[in-house]
Amino acid sequence: MIPIRSVPEVLARARDLSSPALEDALGRLSPELRPLAEYHFGLADESGRRVDGAVTGKGVRAALVVLSTEAAGAPAETGVPGAVGVELVHNFSLIHDDVIDCDRERRHRPTVWSLWGIGRAIIAGDALLALAQQILLETDSAVTTTGAAAARCLAEATGEMIAGQALDMAFESLPGIDVDRCLSMEAGKTGALLGCAASLGAILAGASAPVTSALKDFGVQLGLAFQAVDDLLGIWGDPSQTGKPIGNDIRQHKKTLPIAAALAAGDGYAGELAELLTHEDLADGEVARAATLVEKCGGRMLATDEAKGRLAAALDALGRVQIDERSRDELSDIARFVVAREF
Amino acid sequence: MIPIRSVPEVLARARDLSSPALEDALGRLSPELRPLAEYHFGLADESGRRVDGAVTGKGVRAALVVLSTEAAGAPAETGVPGAVGVELVHNFSLIHDDVIDCDRERRHRPTVWSLWGIGRAIIAGDALLALAQQILLETDSAVTTTGAAAARCLAEATGEMIAGQALDMAFESLPGIDVDRCLSMEAGKTGALLGCAASLGAILAGASAPVTSALKDFGVQLGLAFQAVDDLLGIWGDPSQTGKPIGNDIRQHKKTLPIAAALAAGDGYAGELAELLTHEDLADGEVARAATLVEKCGGRMLATDEAKGRLAAALDALGRVQIDERSRDELSDIARFVVAREF
Repeated sequence: MIPIRSVPEVLARARDLSSPALEDALGRLSPELRPLAEYHFGLADESGRRVDGAVTGKGVRAALVVLSTEAAGAPAETGVPGAVGVELVHNFSLIHDDVIDCDRERRHRPTVWSLWGIGRAIIAGDALLALAQQILLETDSAVTTTGAAAARCLAEATGEMIAGQALDMAFESLPGIDVDRCLSMEAGKTGALLGCAASLGAILAGASAPVTSALKDFGVQLGLAFQAVDDLLGIWGDPSQTGKPIGNDIRQHKKTLPIAAALAAGDGYAGELAELLTHEDLADGEVARAATLVEKCGGRMLATDEAKGRLAAALDALGRVQIDERSRDELSDIARFVVAREF
Repeated sequence: MIPIRSVPEVLARARDLSSPALEDALGRLSPELRPLAEYHFGLADESGRRVDGAVTGKGVRAALVVLSTEAAGAPAETGVPGAVGVELVHNFSLIHDDVIDCDRERRHRPTVWSLWGIGRAIIAGDALLALAQQILLETDSAVTTTGAAAARCLAEATGEMIAGQALDMAFESLPGIDVDRCLSMEAGKTGALLGCAASLGAILAGASAPVTSALKDFGVQLGLAFQAVDDLLGIWGDPSQTGKPIGNDIRQHKKTLPIAAALAAGDGYAGELAELLTHEDLADGEVARAATLVEKCGGRMLATDEAKGRLAAALDALGRVQIDERSRDELSDIARFVVAREF
């Protein structure tokens, strides 16, 4: 059996495979929008000069697409349009999210809207979403229709992701939310696109329904595990790692999983927490007290269990079907890597 | 030969055919987004109560899709998912445009963002765009792939429309633009989606490439004619008809076709016009003078000729191919109707 590659190798390989296609795709944008997109993807600076060593994310989504292609027995190249499509949709949502949240910085750089204005940022995001569909639909010929199936999967995931974002925004004006609604929001916001990514390569490879559905389930569960870890880091994460102040989600009054679970506990600590969270601006001491209260109410434990349980469910899903063994091991490693951030 | 239907009959029939499917599509949006979309489409008021007699547009795009389906010899019903897709994309762009232009009213009602905020309006528009793709891709089965071809046509047109909007926004900061660039912007902003609408039904009907391409050409030319008329009305339109103050595009410093052509004339009148347009706020007398100058520089004549020429080209395109005679006549009538607004 061929030895499996390490996670950094898998990520680097997916990036090397998909980056040229992604750059080609961005090159098709109009001259007014291309600089904004290339800047956002870290390929150019704000004056349009090319930048070496792009400042982008880890490319987990692209790696999932590539691995799912190989899991279904097809060459990695078959999945490249899928990797491009998923990255375009992910970044469309980031550009719009930054406008919606009024965030001026992402990955230590000014956001698109803060440089070019809200109108151009909206349009640039829209263009990435339309382009993602085009890229997948162009892969079809008279004899293959896997691109259409992939485009459909991506459009559905995009719709679920947007519904999750809308629910997240609605939570802001509620005093508390129950844990199930919070999980359903996170399934949309994070799970849907990861589920799509983890099955899109297999769809492009023409895999059977049981294979694509198991891979999708793997991705959705992984997305929920990832989001639970993100929620833990949003309260207890090391600022030197997260780039955000400690207790950031508490400061921003976000209704994440540990906070929702703590508020739902209904005891005296939960009451004190609810009262604290009504304060507009929280002092450092209040943030620390709120974090302690979330822990006392069992919010930290619940989110930790959620992360572990979802990771186990993701790995289980991979075991349910017949796929390429090496890809299964590499997908499992990626899943453990994504969840294994310090929390 | 079956007598052709009048334009109002054709529009009403397309609306009757596509409205239930459009409402079903909107019903699939999440509970947080559905009220915004139904309000925008005039199906509900801002508190979510159903409204009788929807306050929507004339539905020209849906009618073009339905007629192009019949032109290709298929029953009108085959084109319904296309009519829904085109209306969803058109309205996605309207919701985002209103945010970008800070317009507080559309069709005498408050815009989505002015009621629900910028963030929710962005998300609601995004949701319509993703939904449009889903609707078309769902029409395919194991034996038909016309939905994928239609989805591709729609994604391409959406990309061109967005590129046109981006160019339009870039024009705002330029003192003058040449007529060709202005026309290329209008081909994107208005022509692309009308071209898609006029061919989408034929694509769903599985028509041959010459037929779909002639119908697309018809729609693109019609879009350019329509936009030229819109530009004329933006300066000389009767406020009681347009719902906007006289000389509105001049007040808003828009670079529409007659204005671009006038500024490009390069004579003394053009110089006076350019100087006038540097004024931040224009008095009524200045707006009237600017309109006179646009006319003296030949801008009104050029846009009028453009509207007539593009209408003729649209009708020519219809004559190029073998399509159902009745549909050809009805498409011609729709084209004349769209362009025949007072100017």
